[in-house]
Amino acid sequence: MNPKRYLPIFQWLPHYRRETLTRDLLAAVIVTIMLIPQSLAYAMLAGLPAEVGLYASVLPLVAYAVFGTSRTLAVGPVAVVSLMTAAALGNLATPGSPEYVGAALVLALLSGLILTLMGVARLGFLANFLSHPVISGFITASGLIIAAGQLRHLIGVEASGHNMVTLLSGLVEQAGSIHGATLLLGGGSLLFLYAVRRWLKGSLTAMGVSVATADMLTKAAPIVAVAVTTLLTWQLGLDKQGVDVVGDIPAGLPPITLPGFEPGLWGDLLMAALLISIVGFVESVSVGQTLAAKRRQRIDPNQELIGLGGANLAASFSGGMPVTGGFSRSVVNFDAGAQTPAAGAFTAVGIGVAALVLTPLIAYLPVATLAATIIIAVLSLVDFPAIVRTWRYSRSDFAAMLATIVVTLVSGVESGILAGVGLSLALHLYRTSRPHSAVIGRVPGSEHFRNIERHQVETVPHLCILRVDESLYFANARYLEDTVMDEVSRQPDVKHVVLACQAVNVIDASALESLETINQRLSDAGVSLHLAEVKGPVMDRLQNTAFCQALTGFVHLSTYHAWVALTQPTNARYPEHASCPNASTLPWANGTHEAAPTMAAASPLQ
Amino acid sequence: MNPKRYLPIFQWLPHYRRETLTRDLLAAVIVTIMLIPQSLAYAMLAGLPAEVGLYASVLPLVAYAVFGTSRTLAVGPVAVVSLMTAAALGNLATPGSPEYVGAALVLALLSGLILTLMGVARLGFLANFLSHPVISGFITASGLIIAAGQLRHLIGVEASGHNMVTLLSGLVEQAGSIHGATLLLGGGSLLFLYAVRRWLKGSLTAMGVSVATADMLTKAAPIVAVAVTTLLTWQLGLDKQGVDVVGDIPAGLPPITLPGFEPGLWGDLLMAALLISIVGFVESVSVGQTLAAKRRQRIDPNQELIGLGGANLAASFSGGMPVTGGFSRSVVNFDAGAQTPAAGAFTAVGIGVAALVLTPLIAYLPVATLAATIIIAVLSLVDFPAIVRTWRYSRSDFAAMLATIVVTLVSGVESGILAGVGLSLALHLYRTSRPHSAVIGRVPGSEHFRNIERHQVETVPHLCILRVDESLYFANARYLEDTVMDEVSRQPDVKHVVLACQAVNVIDASALESLETINQRLSDAGVSLHLAEVKGPVMDRLQNTAFCQALTGFVHLSTYHAWVALTQPTNARYPEHASCPNASTLPWANGTHEAAPTMAAASPLQ
Repeated sequence: MNPKRYLPIFQWLPHYRRETLTRDLLAAVIVTIMLIPQSLAYAMLAGLPAEVGLYASVLPLVAYAVFGTSRTLAVGPVAVVSLMTAAALGNLATPGSPEYVGAALVLALLSGLILTLMGVARLGFLANFLSHPVISGFITASGLIIAAGQLRHLIGVEASGHNMVTLLSGLVEQAGSIHGATLLLGGGSLLFLYAVRRWLKGSLTAMGVSVATADMLTKAAPIVAVAVTTLLTWQLGLDKQGVDVVGDIPAGLPPITLPGFEPGLWGDLLMAALLISIVGFVESVSVGQTLAAKRRQRIDPNQELIGLGGANLAASFSGGMPVTGGFSRSVVNFDAGAQTPAAGAFTAVGIGVAALVLTPLIAYLPVATLAATIIIAVLSLVDFPAIVRTWRYSRSDFAAMLATIVVTLVSGVESGILAGVGLSLALHLYRTSRPHSAVIGRVPGSEHFRNIERHQVETVPHLCILRVDESLYFANARYLEDTVMDEVSRQPDVKHVVLACQAVNVIDASALESLETINQRLSDAGVSLHLAEVKGPVMDRLQNTAFCQALTGFVHLSTYHAWVALTQPTNARYPEHASCPNASTLPWANGTHEAAPTMAAASPLQ
Repeated sequence: MNPKRYLPIFQWLPHYRRETLTRDLLAAVIVTIMLIPQSLAYAMLAGLPAEVGLYASVLPLVAYAVFGTSRTLAVGPVAVVSLMTAAALGNLATPGSPEYVGAALVLALLSGLILTLMGVARLGFLANFLSHPVISGFITASGLIIAAGQLRHLIGVEASGHNMVTLLSGLVEQAGSIHGATLLLGGGSLLFLYAVRRWLKGSLTAMGVSVATADMLTKAAPIVAVAVTTLLTWQLGLDKQGVDVVGDIPAGLPPITLPGFEPGLWGDLLMAALLISIVGFVESVSVGQTLAAKRRQRIDPNQELIGLGGANLAASFSGGMPVTGGFSRSVVNFDAGAQTPAAGAFTAVGIGVAALVLTPLIAYLPVATLAATIIIAVLSLVDFPAIVRTWRYSRSDFAAMLATIVVTLVSGVESGILAGVGLSLALHLYRTSRPHSAVIGRVPGSEHFRNIERHQVETVPHLCILRVDESLYFANARYLEDTVMDEVSRQPDVKHVVLACQAVNVIDASALESLETINQRLSDAGVSLHLAEVKGPVMDRLQNTAFCQALTGFVHLSTYHAWVALTQPTNARYPEHASCPNASTLPWANGTHEAAPTMAAASPLQ
């Protein structure tokens, strides 16, 4: 076993230099400043005490630095995963209660185990079944739900729910009891954060500040909002006037925790843990790949699973919550010049210091400020133009995206993502079960064949060349039978049917039986069946089958070879029951193709 | 609305002639003789009173004659559907009890509704998702379970179960209490039926009897066994010595029944009804298509759904059980010369007369004789060579088949068929998520391009032509990224990558994003990306996308065009950021291809 494969830390640690250290340290300071308010806010979003967010930003970062392959990914609590955590735990315990905190540890543990097992079993490809439109729709809908859910903190009312319907109806019911001071603090923070995001970067760059620095200053705005509103609340005693604050949280390093083993609870959380794992992995790996490509680095998706799995296991044993790689903090880390995962470890030290030292100051931090930072962060996830783009490009992708958005908004995150995956798979299967096919003719004077409905091509009455644009498998086997028989019944003069198989990548056992049936029925009608352009791997399998023995026509190297053979006058007495040509006599199998130029010269229609 | 479309009876009834009548009547008599013992036996197999089988063979046949499109399909209780009925009802009520009989009516009603709705909504294609190997494996496993389940009747012991494990363990427990007289009757019938099936047809044809007549005489053997063993039992009073007999059954026409509406029961039976409907439809439609093709007739699968749906609805309102088209009786009907569905209606009259007149005689019919007819009938369904054939042709088809067989035998029919369908879909998706791809080169002196690993072909160091043998969709989008980038990293001299898309039938939104990513990453590495052989429908969609705007290379008509364009020396200064060519200037879009011969003549390597 090569330790470098499973412990990527050995790839960079031996070459660690002083200048790398300087750059990593600088990036870590900037990410720490950004991560403190985010950690607190996403813990709150998940229904957990604020300190859990800090704990989840210490050991998990160290674990990822050891096991992860991205040099710049910044791990920790993120918005969508926190929302999914809240949805998973909401039915099991009261938010904030010890049972709830314990269940979050179990969720992180299960998620860590699932990710690690998937990584070891090299099941990273499973994430591919989440299509881009489904992910995009899911993240947009999650952003909307999160924003709607935070509104209550912003205006200081009680309301709850994990989908748009319950959230909005709760807000409407409570609209009469808006708390003025809370609204001022929350609304003020929201306006400040929005203004910074909208204008600060442009103004700074206009003043000559570099784009990267302007970007980082912009991303540091939440810590300013946190500091100012905390100070205001403390000075004016707003917490005593009903402004909700984070309150006393224990100062200290993350505790060592042991997730409970209750089979019932594990069963209840398993599905949620699986979805959290896959969604978290997909988000994280796409950020990681984008950043790696910019520096010509590669990340290994299966090792990433192990890295994220390790991070979640670390979270579960240190009082944390499910974590994954975050988009904006990773970009900041990258822009700040992080060179190695050591930057993540240094960030962990920074957050650890914050948990030790800053916690007394956080007591006066208004919840409304955290809500404002969450709302601003998640609204950048909402991507309406992507919906329009998808609608324009593909109706079936749009349908999967819309189903994901609507079901997520109406019914919740788990059913939303399952509906999206289910529908996109069903639509894919439906499409391949009714493949596009085209009768093709010869482009005059060439060896090319194209759809007779789209191009001016030559055809011959006794020859029907059908191109099937899909692999032949059980879902479309019967459709193929219908297509061929319909085509032949429409063209009474046809004596030869050629199936052009350039798009056929597989013929499974069901399709093979259908081909046998087609061959038999055509033979009964006095028509011979030919194949052309059969690919190597497909022909290897067909070689020794009963179908190949019974085939009434031939297997031709190309459509053009079939055209030449079947349009020459000598072929009027074409053998009715020629057996399948032996592999070694097939022209394409011996690697020399000296026949091709001759055939081109002998084309009968020139 | 055209009545001929939804009521196929209007297609043949107006042209009905006397000679057609004679042939239909003859076929009806023969099928009636064959159907009486089958109906009784399959009712017993389903755990229902024997008369239910007769009732299910009257009105359903009339309904199918009105709505069905096959001229020769014979409808009624069949073995596999009866087994599935027994499995569905077994957990809900005691076999033979009034609740059980009522639940069978509900099952027939649900099945009828599902089939009719599928037909109206034209969902016949759903049956395609049952692959041939899964059906074949399911029927083999069902045959083995049915045969094992009938053994207890043959040897006169009590045992029950719906899977192989419970059935065999029950038989072993009861092995000590074999009933001698029952074994003699049952074993005798079994030997007689086996001998007839094995030797009678051959002997008769050797004696000069026509094959069709010999076949029909062979198929009439069960009625002989029934008559002889009934007579023996009556004469010797064997029923009083412990031989199980059918017993008194009410004489009379099918009663009018109303299936009960209990939401709980409907919910319990819905899944079973869906599976029974689909399995019954697949069996029936394949028999119907085979027979129709022999006489150059066509059947319409969606109208068949309505025909079978009508038959099941009729069964549910006339004291019956779920029915479908049977294989052996349809072949007998066809061979006996049935011309129109009227033969089925006449058969219904025959069974009706039997229900009125013959029921007193049936009282002494030994159950063991019925068990023997079932065992002989279902063992012909068991197809071990198909398992070997599938193993040889395709390992993944074999895996789906094996899963179906094993899960059906061990766990029951419903889980068996769901396991088979699930696994075959999962394997199909897994395969398309890791598509075959090949770097291709030019077959010397031709316009053909083939896999460099399989053929002696020309290549050029600065050009990499990659053929992807699958549609590009979400499940393989990321795999495509990896494949292209790996190939480029292996060939450092490459300046142009051409994706040959002849096998790409669809590019969905996820794959489009991956192509954008690939284009960007190649561009960063100083490599331009080209497409070739893009199909019309795919190109139509790509036309107005951001990808097409950003494409660093060109879209070429064919791989050969790309080869010519990219191997000519003038192309050393190939434009790095050429925009996507406008649709109207693409050579393949205007229908004239005058450029092709010129390019062929200008091939740089000739």
